[in-house]
Parts: sequence; C-alpha cells; structure tokens
Amino acid sequence: MIVISRARAGVLFSRFIKLHPFLLTTFINRSLYCEVTAGNMDAAYKKIEKHIDEHKNMYIERLREAVAIPSVSGEPERRRDVIKMVNWMKTHLERLGVKTELIQLGKQTLPDGNKLDIAPALFGTLGNDPKKKTLLIYGHLDVQPAYKEDGWNTEPFQLVEKDGKLFGRGSTDDKGPNVAWINALEAFKETQTELPINIKFCFEAMEESGSEGLEEALRTHSDFLKGIDFTCISDNYWLGRNKPCLTYGLRGLAYYAVEISGCKQDLHSGVFGGTVFEPMNDVIWILSQLTDLNGTIRIPQIYELVRPVTDEERNLYAPIDFDVDYYKNSIGAVNLTQKAKADILMNVWRNPSLSIHGIEGAYSGPGGKTIIPCKVTGKFSIRLVPDMLPEKVNKIVIDHLSKLWKTRGSPNTMRAYNMSSGMYWLSDYKHPHFKAGARAIKRVFGMEPDYTREGGSIPITLTFEELTKNNVMLLPIGACDDMAHSQNEKINVENYIKGTKTLAAYLIELSDQ
Amino acid sequence: MIVISRARAGVLFSRFIKLHPFLLTTFINRSLYCEVTAGNMDAAYKKIEKHIDEHKNMYIERLREAVAIPSVSGEPERRRDVIKMVNWMKTHLERLGVKTELIQLGKQTLPDGNKLDIAPALFGTLGNDPKKKTLLIYGHLDVQPAYKEDGWNTEPFQLVEKDGKLFGRGSTDDKGPNVAWINALEAFKETQTELPINIKFCFEAMEESGSEGLEEALRTHSDFLKGIDFTCISDNYWLGRNKPCLTYGLRGLAYYAVEISGCKQDLHSGVFGGTVFEPMNDVIWILSQLTDLNGTIRIPQIYELVRPVTDEERNLYAPIDFDVDYYKNSIGAVNLTQKAKADILMNVWRNPSLSIHGIEGAYSGPGGKTIIPCKVTGKFSIRLVPDMLPEKVNKIVIDHLSKLWKTRGSPNTMRAYNMSSGMYWLSDYKHPHFKAGARAIKRVFGMEPDYTREGGSIPITLTFEELTKNNVMLLPIGACDDMAHSQNEKINVENYIKGTKTLAAYLIELSDQ
Repeated sequence: MIVISRARAGVLFSRFIKLHPFLLTTFINRSLYCEVTAGNMDAAYKKIEKHIDEHKNMYIERLREAVAIPSVSGEPERRRDVIKMVNWMKTHLERLGVKTELIQLGKQTLPDGNKLDIAPALFGTLGNDPKKKTLLIYGHLDVQPAYKEDGWNTEPFQLVEKDGKLFGRGSTDDKGPNVAWINALEAFKETQTELPINIKFCFEAMEESGSEGLEEALRTHSDFLKGIDFTCISDNYWLGRNKPCLTYGLRGLAYYAVEISGCKQDLHSGVFGGTVFEPMNDVIWILSQLTDLNGTIRIPQIYELVRPVTDEERNLYAPIDFDVDYYKNSIGAVNLTQKAKADILMNVWRNPSLSIHGIEGAYSGPGGKTIIPCKVTGKFSIRLVPDMLPEKVNKIVIDHLSKLWKTRGSPNTMRAYNMSSGMYWLSDYKHPHFKAGARAIKRVFGMEPDYTREGGSIPITLTFEELTKNNVMLLPIGACDDMAHSQNEKINVENYIKGTKTLAAYLIELSDQ
Repeated sequence: MIVISRARAGVLFSRFIKLHPFLLTTFINRSLYCEVTAGNMDAAYKKIEKHIDEHKNMYIERLREAVAIPSVSGEPERRRDVIKMVNWMKTHLERLGVKTELIQLGKQTLPDGNKLDIAPALFGTLGNDPKKKTLLIYGHLDVQPAYKEDGWNTEPFQLVEKDGKLFGRGSTDDKGPNVAWINALEAFKETQTELPINIKFCFEAMEESGSEGLEEALRTHSDFLKGIDFTCISDNYWLGRNKPCLTYGLRGLAYYAVEISGCKQDLHSGVFGGTVFEPMNDVIWILSQLTDLNGTIRIPQIYELVRPVTDEERNLYAPIDFDVDYYKNSIGAVNLTQKAKADILMNVWRNPSLSIHGIEGAYSGPGGKTIIPCKVTGKFSIRLVPDMLPEKVNKIVIDHLSKLWKTRGSPNTMRAYNMSSGMYWLSDYKHPHFKAGARAIKRVFGMEPDYTREGGSIPITLTFEELTKNNVMLLPIGACDDMAHSQNEKINVENYIKGTKTLAAYLIELSDQ
C-alpha cells in the first residue's frame, strides 16, 4: 500500500491533469452534472422542461438563423449555402462538446455534364461511456427549392411567425427537428444534467437530392456505426394535428420513365402536323392506361404482391386519431378516393399508389408553343408496400409497358426503364425502443402516441437498420398540415417547443433500457 | 410668254434647287438611273444578276452580321438584342434611301407580372411616284430561342458555312429573306437601275411571340397602308429542295388549354398518393381522348366543317414536286400517317391536325420529382383549314371537352378555354400578282413554280389582305429542309443567292402589271 501526503497528492494530480487535460473537464463535468438514473428521471425532466420553456424565444431565433440559409441541394448554384448549413450545424454541435467530422462524399454529375462537390455529411460523437447505450441521431440539413412566386405568402427563407405558426422553407423538413435536437442537448448541458447515453450524429445535406453518396460513406465508415443500439430519425410528421405518434413503417418508391422517340428533331406543328406520328400522343396514351379515375393501378399482378390485411392489422386503425374532414380540408380536396378512415389510412400506408409526375421534353412553360417534340419522357412512380420487392415490381411494370406499346402499334420508339427504386420499411412498434419513445411522449403530452406508418419514403431508414442491425424509430415532431415540400411550409411553435421537450425526454427514457 | 436668258435660267435654277434640294437628287438620279420598262426588263435583270453574283461573299457576311444578333423575342432578357436587330435593319434601309419610322407598340406583360417594352416595328417608304404601283414588303427580325445544348452542331448565333449551307438561328426564318431584300434593293441602287415600283416596308420583331401590338399598330397607322397594290411576304419555305414555289394558302391555328385543379397546393406523392384524385391523371386522360393513333381528330363535328375536295383541287396535287421519301428522311420519320403524295399534302395543307404540346404545372425537368401537382394545364392546338371558322371550332372543342369531363366523373375542377385563334388564309394563285412572281422565278430558275399551300400560320397575312384590300403573295426562298424553329436551322447558299435574284426579278416583273 503506498501512502502519500495530501500535498504530494495535489502535485501528482496537477501533473496528471497537465498531461491529460480532457480528464479535468470530465472530472468537473462528472462532479457538477446531475446523473440521470431510474430514480431521478422525473426530476431531471422537470428541470429540463423548465429550461426549455424559459428559452422558447431563443429557440425560435435559432430556427430563424437556420431557415435563413437557403440550403437547397437540388439547385447547384445554392451548393455553397448547403455547405454553409453543414458548418452551421457543426459549430453548434462542437459548442455542445460533440467531436465532429466532415465526410466528403465525392462529386455529383449535373444534368449539363459538369461536376460539383457533393455537400459533405457531418458525423459526430458525444460521449463514449461503455456503460451507456449508444443512440444514433439522423437528420438532413438541406431543403426543397422554394420561390415566393410559387405561391408562398411570405419570403420562404425568412422565418415568419403568425398565429402560432413558424412559416419558412425547412421549418419542419428538417431544420425544425434538427434545431430541436440542439436545443434539447443544450438544455441537458445548461441544466448540468448528465446525458444518460452516448450519442452519435449523422447529418447529411443531400437528402432532397437522393442522399447522393451517403449510403456508400456509411458503408465505408463502418466503424462509426459500430455499437449503435438504436437509431432515431425525426424527419416525418404526425398523422393529425393534435396527437403525437411514433412511426414504424414507410412505403418504398419505384420511379419509371417511358421515353418515346419519333422524328430526329422537334418539328413545327403547322408544317408537319397531320403527317407525323407525334410522340406526345403516344406518351399521353400510355400514361392514360396506368390508373383508373380513382387511382387504382391498372398494371396486372401489382396487387398480387401486396401483403393481405389481417384482422389484427385491421384493428389497429380504429383507435387512431385521424380526422378525415380535417385531412381533406387541409389540402383543399373536394373528395378523397376513399371515405372511411381505415381505408384512407390503408391507401397511404399499406397499399401501393401510382402518380404521374410529368413529361420531360414537352412544352411546360406558360402561354402557347406550337412544337411537336421529337422525344418525350413520361415520368411516373409507384409507392411500394410489403411485400412488393422492387425487382419484382420493375419486371412487372416494364413488361406491362412493353405489352401496352405493342397494342399501340405506333411506328415511334419506346424505351421504358426504372429510374430508381427504394424498398419499403416495416419495423416492430412493440420493440422496447418504441416503448421509450412512447414514455417520452407520455411525459410531454400526457397521452399515448399513435403508432403510424407513412406513405412517403426515407431510404436511409433501411440503411441504418441494415448497418446497425438494431431498431430504428421515427419520432416526428411536426404536424400533418406542415406542408413539407410545398408552398408555405411551417412548423407550429407548440410542436417545435414540445418537440424539443420530447427529444429531451426521449434521451432520458433511453437510460431506462 | 416669258423669255429668259440662259444665264438667268441658270441663276433661277440654282435658287430653285437651294429651296428644293431633294429635287436635285431626283433630277440627278433620274438622269443616271436606268429606267425599267417593258422593253428593257431583260437587260435590267441581267445587270442586277451579274451584280448579285459578284457580291455573293459580301451577302453572306451581311447575313452573318444579322444572325450574330440574338434577337429572341420570346426571352425578355434578349429584348435589347431584338431592338438592336430592328436598328440594324433601319440603318440598312436608310442607307438605301428608305424613309424609316420606328413604331412603338407599347408594353408587354410578362408571366411574372412585370412589364417590358415591346420591340418597335419598323415602317419604311421608298419612292412615292404616283405613276408607279406600290408594293408592301413584310418580314420579321426576331427569331426563336436557340441553345447549343438543345442539339445544335454549331453555335446557333454564329453563321457557319458547311457543304453549301449556312447554319444559324434565323438564317432562313426570317433573317435570310430580310437580308435578301436588302441585297436586292442595293443591287438596283448600285447598278443605277431605277426601281419600277414604290415600296413600303413593314418589319416587326415580335413575330415569334405572337406579333404582339402589330395588328393594332397597322390599324392605327391606316395611312401607311393606303394605296398598296400588293403585299409580298417571304417567311415560308419551298415544298421541296429543288423547285421554287409561290404560296397561296395557310392553315389557321386555334390553341386550347385544359386546366385541371385539384387540391389547393402541390402534394408529396408519398404522403398523399392513393387518397387524392390527381389532376395529372385527369389531364392525361382528357388529352388521350382527342386523337387516334394516326392523329385523326376524335372531336365530333370537326371534319364536317372542312371544305370537301373537288376534282379540280385533286388534280392540282399530281404535278407538284414533292419527294415523299426525302420528306420522311429529312425529319427522320419511320412512317408517316399517309403514304400517297396527295394525301400527305392534303393533310398538311387542307386538313386540320391536332397536336398536344405539353402540360404546364407538371414536372418537366430531368430526373425524378415525386410531386402531385395541384393544377395542371394541358395544351393542344388545332390547325384550321377552309371552312373552319375559329368561333365555330372553339364552340365545338370547348363543348366536347366539357362533355368528356362529365363522363370522367372526377371531383376535380376543369376549365377549358381557347388561348388564341387565327383564321386560315386562302388566296387566288391565278391573280396577276402571282403571275409576276411566277415570271420572276422563271427568270432565275428557268422553271415554273409550284403553287403551294402551307400547314403553318402567318396571321399577319390575313391582316394585310384585309387592310390593303389587295392581293398578298408568299414568295419563299428557303428550302423545305431548312428546319426553321428547330435545331440546326440553315439556309442553302444557293437558295440565299438565287432568292436575292428572285426578289430583284420580282421587283422588275411588278413593273409589268
């Protein structure tokens, strides 16, 4: 046994600290920080909740700053702003003690053939305590394009508060949730509450442009994803406006092109109209064969792939808080293709749908142009649900388009192809991870969440599930009427602030796994 | 009787000339110029023809200068270039002694709501001899948009000579013919050949954008059109590549929009696909109902309006020089909707055709976008032939679209409307004016022209016919494969130079009316 004096101990300690200064921080943090244990979770949450309430205005200003950066990944001329947004997030994470790394994702080939740097992904690590579980948080920092003249009531990149709503591009998709994570983590830090888990961060800034390069980077940086116990993504929306939810399913997406080529160049419709077989007529005809009035897909065998509804599943829909009239009115629809709540939900969650998006090569501007386009490409997509495997769907769709084309008998040339495919995702909402999410929601809202699926696709969800081999949960904070991707996107102030609380509560509840 | 000495006469003459200096010019010109009379037309033409042959290279350089001005009227940012082109022409006309005037045509409202000055029209007058007949020459100085990346082999606004062809936007439509007029008039001047007629000029620079403001200006400046005996327009093309023609008929154009509105804003196809009635499905369906595979219009009553073919008319087609295979190959068509020459010509000249041009509001870019557009507008047009009066056609088309819409049973809203209408034009190819044109062609090419009609529309033709109450003739100089409005527009050097000669010969032949 070695005995040393207190003075000697002090000298040794300060020498040790000089060599390992980070330990001092840890030591001080440990001593100041309030550790969250099963016993004091309530107290920890109360303290954090109070802090969040007191900082509401500052959180709104922080979101305003993020929205003001027009990080539109789909517009090459905005790429600098996208990168600026990544660095904005990086600075915030580092301020909170996160060790960050920018992951270069290579070059993107633009439609004009030029190459452009893909905006880097931002990886981060906060805490490395082997006694704690590790959470991976994913979010995206880029946004959809937005122009006031598209029908916005306000400047899209200026956050405007009106009637308890914060309008601005990215307010809900996905800057609101991202900034809510910052707010929640800051609340832990400033209330000196120890984080009960290790956290890893994966922020990307090309999500709205197909997440180019990210999946490959995640596969390359396999170490980064090691030891992750659960992944949380806040990049979707509540089913309604009032009741929070946890999301366990997504539809996949298969996108198709039908390219019809006629003459070797565009023709004047006066000089040639009446003598040539116009590719537009062909593409319009073929697209007109794909669905019924109410959207039922007229491609044989498609519905045979769809998993039948069980009684257990059918029973899930009844208690779900979904206001059909509100849903209808919020989008200004006169009628929906289904009347009953369960049928509407099933059509969005567990049935495929086909949408025709447009025709490349045709005239799309205002006014009139009297051209016969020589090559037109019809674009449509099918949302995939269990058990529609993309390969099977692709074969069925392309075969059917070829058959249709034969019956058409046009002398033009048709080429149908799959532009991209993403698998559906279906998780287990009874998993303990979802239970932790549910407890967090109960804490903040005093109610059980609905367990929902989504009609949209978030392909990275599948990647995380595959690479971490652990549960992924979608924890939305925005409301159903936030109008992501559309004009006048917003997040409610209440959703933003309660969302911040929910994320904080979720971090606390994760300690009880 | 007053007798004055020669010296006194000289003083009086020079005093008189000081007061009326223009008379001196006339006096000198009269004495130098060779007057074209019925007797010396051959000699006059020979001299001019020789001059034209000697100045071929200079004429090409002059066209190069004109093509280099990117006078695209459809692109607001090019408006300065359009006006520059007007001034370029003005300078040339003035150099040839033409008294010019710029006619302001007011403001144009752009799609974004901004106002922009319409490029002015250029009116000109050359000669005012009451003993001579008066010709009105019309041309347009603006061009269609053109970008190399659209598929041009060369820079569209740089004239490139290759294999006897002059490639460049506007080379044939309509800068080539305009510059040929300058060349022809200059040849008269430089060979000191008196013009046998008075000439008025009406050049506009908004033809490719609907000739905004011109018709109104012509009606307002009714004095300018007084006393015009014939109007000549060189803004169309030969039927083939080898034989010149004179054109006596044009199809009209009725342009339609079918606007379908669904929800109040664009929707994410994942979040809403399957529950909403998508406007794209409706517009695709309605457009698919308008024609058969081979372009036959499926709108009842349309063909009842079409003037029946007489035996006399049918006999006109047989001798016409029209190479079906060349026509087919020049546009790269695998098949045409008709096989026989007469049937093809009738489909372009005297039968209506319907072309679907595109869908405004749908996604038209490259790649994929998963949007459900909230409002889409299908655009199509019908070429009108005798006796399809636009008002009648409009009623039939709109009524039919409304009927179709009822059978569709969609809850969305449909609004069908006529965007613009232009009447067909049919003149008398046996008129003496056409005979003069034919003699001019005979002089240059040694052959009789074909008498043709055109499938396209030149609405101003009708306006001139109405306002001058006299014959209008179309005298094309470009070949059928010049690809106006398309990529790689060109004029053959031979067509350009022989065209210049034809216009000069035509001016000579007009003296023999």
